[in-house]
Amino acid sequence: MRRTRLIDVPCPIARGLDEVGEWWSLLILRDAMLGLTRFDEFQRSIGLASNMLTRRLQALVEAGLLEKRPYQDRPLRHGYHLTGKGRDFLPVLIAMADWGSRWLASGGAFRIVDRDTGRPVEPVLIDRTTGEAIRPERLRPEFTIPAKTTWAKDETE
Amino acid sequence: MRRTRLIDVPCPIARGLDEVGEWWSLLILRDAMLGLTRFDEFQRSIGLASNMLTRRLQALVEAGLLEKRPYQDRPLRHGYHLTGKGRDFLPVLIAMADWGSRWLASGGAFRIVDRDTGRPVEPVLIDRTTGEAIRPERLRPEFTIPAKTTWAKDETE
Repeated sequence: MRRTRLIDVPCPIARGLDEVGEWWSLLILRDAMLGLTRFDEFQRSIGLASNMLTRRLQALVEAGLLEKRPYQDRPLRHGYHLTGKGRDFLPVLIAMADWGSRWLASGGAFRIVDRDTGRPVEPVLIDRTTGEAIRPERLRPEFTIPAKTTWAKDETE
Repeated sequence: MRRTRLIDVPCPIARGLDEVGEWWSLLILRDAMLGLTRFDEFQRSIGLASNMLTRRLQALVEAGLLEKRPYQDRPLRHGYHLTGKGRDFLPVLIAMADWGSRWLASGGAFRIVDRDTGRPVEPVLIDRTTGEAIRPERLRPEFTIPAKTTWAKDETE
């Protein structure tokens, strides 16, 4: 990753990739969405070396996707919880899970289900205004860079 | 990336990440969605070194997301076109663009619009069955690994 490059471009995909950092971060976010909060839980799930996991968690905290909250006093221990910005990343993970289960896994081996009813959830991306499924061939990205905008990261978020 | 690790796990997010390979691949897919096909077009857009771009394009061809098609005879030149599997990756990119424009860019600087009408598209992930927006707190992943399934990549796809 050439960190200085991607945050300077207006494309929000490139900037998003820069912020999330690397693949391991997506697996950490996945686990956080599933309710994991403790270091040892992430480590058991992802199998990443301690120093790497520490660095990735810290990067996600700095990027504002996770926040640390104490869950124990003596000794002091922190858990990692999704912020609004982190929770809002869910559609990316769902879209990825949906694509992966369609194209990479054997049929029926994975599915997302409703926690209460157990009914399979079939994610579809629609346009909120029209209610219709989004079709790639109809899309166009539009950049309107305001005069005063810098594309450096806004750390106040 | 520890390539051998991620494809052995049942999680389709991990497997998807493994297949797509790295961040640059997502930018290539983004450009391919926008209609770019030629090597020099990708290079101008992404600014990646030739040997790196060659490797990334080849990896996407091998993974079945892009396919090479000749566009010129003498000398022979190929363009890179999305396959069905590649086009189907669009929701991941849209979800990423949507998140990035909401949390990383200054307001209004980027948006996805309808190619014909110019109207902004606001992507929402819904459940096809219920028609309702997907809420993370209601989801649960379910793995049902069939006896004969191996999680190695199915190269016949």
